[in-house]
Amino acid sequence: MQADLIIVMPIYQGVTHLDFTAPHQFLVRVPNTRVLVASMDGEPVEADGLRFCGLEPLEKIATCDVLCVPGGAGMVAAIEDDKFLEQIQRLGRTARYLTSVCTGSLILAAAGLITGRHAACHWAWRDLLAVFGVIPDPARVVRDGNLLTGGGVTAGIDFALTLIAEIAGEGAAQEVQLGLEYAPAPPFEAGRPDIAPPHILRAVHDRLAVLMPERRERVKLVAEKRAGNLRNLCTGC
Amino acid sequence: MQADLIIVMPIYQGVTHLDFTAPHQFLVRVPNTRVLVASMDGEPVEADGLRFCGLEPLEKIATCDVLCVPGGAGMVAAIEDDKFLEQIQRLGRTARYLTSVCTGSLILAAAGLITGRHAACHWAWRDLLAVFGVIPDPARVVRDGNLLTGGGVTAGIDFALTLIAEIAGEGAAQEVQLGLEYAPAPPFEAGRPDIAPPHILRAVHDRLAVLMPERRERVKLVAEKRAGNLRNLCTGC
Repeated sequence: MQADLIIVMPIYQGVTHLDFTAPHQFLVRVPNTRVLVASMDGEPVEADGLRFCGLEPLEKIATCDVLCVPGGAGMVAAIEDDKFLEQIQRLGRTARYLTSVCTGSLILAAAGLITGRHAACHWAWRDLLAVFGVIPDPARVVRDGNLLTGGGVTAGIDFALTLIAEIAGEGAAQEVQLGLEYAPAPPFEAGRPDIAPPHILRAVHDRLAVLMPERRERVKLVAEKRAGNLRNLCTGC
Repeated sequence: MQADLIIVMPIYQGVTHLDFTAPHQFLVRVPNTRVLVASMDGEPVEADGLRFCGLEPLEKIATCDVLCVPGGAGMVAAIEDDKFLEQIQRLGRTARYLTSVCTGSLILAAAGLITGRHAACHWAWRDLLAVFGVIPDPARVVRDGNLLTGGGVTAGIDFALTLIAEIAGEGAAQEVQLGLEYAPAPPFEAGRPDIAPPHILRAVHDRLAVLMPERRERVKLVAEKRAGNLRNLCTGC
């Protein structure tokens, strides 16, 4: 009997929970697959008022086949935490597929795992991939070799189906899709900046303008610090 | 200042977590709204390998504006539990809107809250609404007066946007949609029985054929028992 394929989802305080709950609900239905949701020390994770317990200790997971990193506003603090990034690096090196949803790609980027490659990201954060030397791609699901990334939050569903097709075949993906009745019918067309009504885009931009400058600065600081570490490492070679 | 609008999501063992995590992620972003995820005694809930803790005790919630009931295979045991159904009935009577996702409509139906009305449900369970005197509707989101119901699992997103438009306006719904980048692009067309490739539908039917007869029998037994209770109640009048 073949061993189950192991998918690890590392989560952290302030993750946008739908970034991982949506792919999780799809991936747990794939035969011969185990999905491990993990946090540092297996500590409970708070996310938008939901509390996730009984998590796997990230440090104790030796290897995985698929590393699937979700995003969220908590991503900024997550990449400022060297210990967390070390775990991402360590597991990423063992994974056959590196994957992410939303700003999870910035975590893979900060971990130095996807330098020079194309990745998706939430539209409001996408350009920040470049500060880590990653090429931002506006597509909803982006594939670059063994790197499969989804755009903002709900793109995690389209990403999950693409991933299932890759690891278990199109038929498996379609069976899960039918079981979860994924035949979307949005009542409005506002899900991307290029199709949202202008006053909606303005309202969201105005709200983000309060939060984003500080977050962007912190992400850039992480990029500088890690580039510095890399330089020091090279000097020491 | 106006009091926050209270949305209660009662969950239970074996809920399909995406039935509530998806609407939850949308609804928590609506201004002046509080979303309470609750279980009997506030006990942790297991769902497909995720463990939800820190839940509100359902019995302690006095009233709500919106009751939003998710579905899942655990729904069968949930409606067999008189104490749980009593809480659904009690809160449902206080709610301005009765709502559900997936087989959550069977819970509202079993609680006797939506008799004679039109409701959505997961395609594989939908016809069972009729055993409770509820009219099955194949639409993805169904409105019947103050009853708003979504179809299977991922319909919860389209449902949530419809609900947000109702309680907070279309603009609020579109802003949340943009923030969560909901511009779906399924890689396959297989999300409904009428559009899925025939061999996919057959495979899913074959798998359900193992599980469904027993589940359907149990749901029908609940319906008979509750109809009996109602008759006894009337005899006592």
